Amino acid sequence: MTPADLLAPVHYAPAAPALLAEWLSAQRYSRLAVAFDINIERLYCERLRSCWPADALVSRIPAGEANKTLATCEQLWTEWYAAGLDRQALVLAIGGGMTTDLVGFAAACWKRGVRFALVPTTLLAMVDATLGGKLGVDFRSGKNLIGTFAQPEAILIATEFLATLDARELRSGYAEVIKHALLFDAAEWAVLSQPRALQTTDWRPIVERSLALKAAVVAADPLERGPRALLNLGHTLGHALESALLDTPDALRHGEAVALGLVLEAQLAVRHTGLSAAEAETIRATIAQLGYPTHIPAIPPARLAELLLQDKKNRDGQLRLALLERIGAARYDVAVPLDHALEACATAMR
Amino acid sequence: MTPADLLAPVHYAPAAPALLAEWLSAQRYSRLAVAFDINIERLYCERLRSCWPADALVSRIPAGEANKTLATCEQLWTEWYAAGLDRQALVLAIGGGMTTDLVGFAAACWKRGVRFALVPTTLLAMVDATLGGKLGVDFRSGKNLIGTFAQPEAILIATEFLATLDARELRSGYAEVIKHALLFDAAEWAVLSQPRALQTTDWRPIVERSLALKAAVVAADPLERGPRALLNLGHTLGHALESALLDTPDALRHGEAVALGLVLEAQLAVRHTGLSAAEAETIRATIAQLGYPTHIPAIPPARLAELLLQDKKNRDGQLRLALLERIGAARYDVAVPLDHALEACATAMR
Repeated sequence: MTPADLLAPVHYAPAAPALLAEWLSAQRYSRLAVAFDINIERLYCERLRSCWPADALVSRIPAGEANKTLATCEQLWTEWYAAGLDRQALVLAIGGGMTTDLVGFAAACWKRGVRFALVPTTLLAMVDATLGGKLGVDFRSGKNLIGTFAQPEAILIATEFLATLDARELRSGYAEVIKHALLFDAAEWAVLSQPRALQTTDWRPIVERSLALKAAVVAADPLERGPRALLNLGHTLGHALESALLDTPDALRHGEAVALGLVLEAQLAVRHTGLSAAEAETIRATIAQLGYPTHIPAIPPARLAELLLQDKKNRDGQLRLALLERIGAARYDVAVPLDHALEACATAMR
Repeated sequence: MTPADLLAPVHYAPAAPALLAEWLSAQRYSRLAVAFDINIERLYCERLRSCWPADALVSRIPAGEANKTLATCEQLWTEWYAAGLDRQALVLAIGGGMTTDLVGFAAACWKRGVRFALVPTTLLAMVDATLGGKLGVDFRSGKNLIGTFAQPEAILIATEFLATLDARELRSGYAEVIKHALLFDAAEWAVLSQPRALQTTDWRPIVERSLALKAAVVAADPLERGPRALLNLGHTLGHALESALLDTPDALRHGEAVALGLVLEAQLAVRHTGLSAAEAETIRATIAQLGYPTHIPAIPPARLAELLLQDKKNRDGQLRLALLERIGAARYDVAVPLDHALEACATAMR
């Protein structure tokens, strides 16, 4: 496989209706199937409806990570089955990362794969979820445990969507932007770590730079046999904390969990990969100053251990993390004892 | 992708324990997960148990096409989740095509893909199901509607398994052998269509020749964008009849349905692709003489139409069939009106 096979083209425009209408007009398909959640419907459906043909099959899926399940896939498949959706169909997923991951997976498995395009509506989905071909759903307490790799026909980024996001949601997405800079670009980190009014930011250049950093490592290792695992920075601990607090009053948004993961994994990096204590403290202070939650309720260690041990990167029962060597450079596949990870998590518990 | 990426190596041996033990001894994996159905357990488990490590995770799945479902995948995923099966695991599926398709799909989606090897125990699975990377499960009344393409690490063919199959099961698998000859090799058809005592046949050379015919077309078109669709000969009508009669006293084995599909689609080929009436009659007479069922109970046309219209190859609401031009040569993607297909099916109804 070549990188070109594995990275979808990204199209940018400020306004979603023009972007979708123009791209769709250039496609050939037997029928368009559109899927979005009820929040997207409420916010945008009136404006977007004119972009797709009147005979488009429109599916509404339940919102929220708790519905990123096989059951929601089955809802889509049942609707596609009833409509006789064939292999020349095109599926359009509009929404956050939960929607693009799930609808993309459903499309990739329908009749062993129909074409699909992704329209991310959150900053998180724009800079992370939609690029790179990772698709899937959660299973039991495991995030994205069931999934596949497949590339969308296109990623359509309309920055107008970001204007409707509240500060908390923007901050969540911004964590992945920060992560890409921490991994690969110390100069970009220096810029991004400055105080910033997220709701009045000009996002297009930030999204483009962040996607370029991600694209370089994905193109080098599309199926995550090697360096792509760097992109898991902050996620090993972050995912476990996110799962543990799911459906509680203290539930973390994905990016909030990643930001906390970046802080806690920096502690592990001091211990295992030579990150300086000064840089770890800079990361902690910056994350706190940007307004991310840095403390969480106590989680029983046995529960956290169970979740950490489900991480897809583990091998031979050992945790395998991406950890910073310094800001702008990291190592992947670093073996870390479970106890060290539990100790780091404990420092964030109230 | 190159053909080498998309065709798994095939290993042959008479005896299963030696074949499995030798192949497994050359593999590296964190843990072996074995899956088979309860019939395989009853017949072979005692003999095979010594082939795998004592810590192998052994899953028993329910037998039969009616269990080729997402629910059975979820059973496997639940067991793999509980065991913390990681991405360096190796999955070994032992059984007929239902088992190899389903367990392969479950492995291809587990943590976005773990390695798997397939051990076919039926003639049908040996000559058809395991080669070519098609994996999946049934959904609603649609066969293999949910699935993906992924290649096993190896296909391990132990011909001793065939000695335990009854004549009906061998005949079912033999339909795919006949299909490959009808499509690509008139001389092989002349040999195969002779009367033959299936239970005393030396299968190894027949399986090897049949797999070679299939491999050539799969290698040319791994993802079925073109000529691989030839392999659907007999399957468009056959699948619909198989689905319609599932769970009835007149249920057809897969190969029986394909054999009947070959007869009925030969009628369509006379009408659409210039197959001579004489060759169509030769095919009918040969299939009947080999002992395949050639008559079925009446199926309501509306039900049959619904099933035919679910076929994955359809486009723009039209059936698309592979049809013979003569014995040994066929065309794919032939548009056939639904009515013609229903008329052909009706000729087989009692």
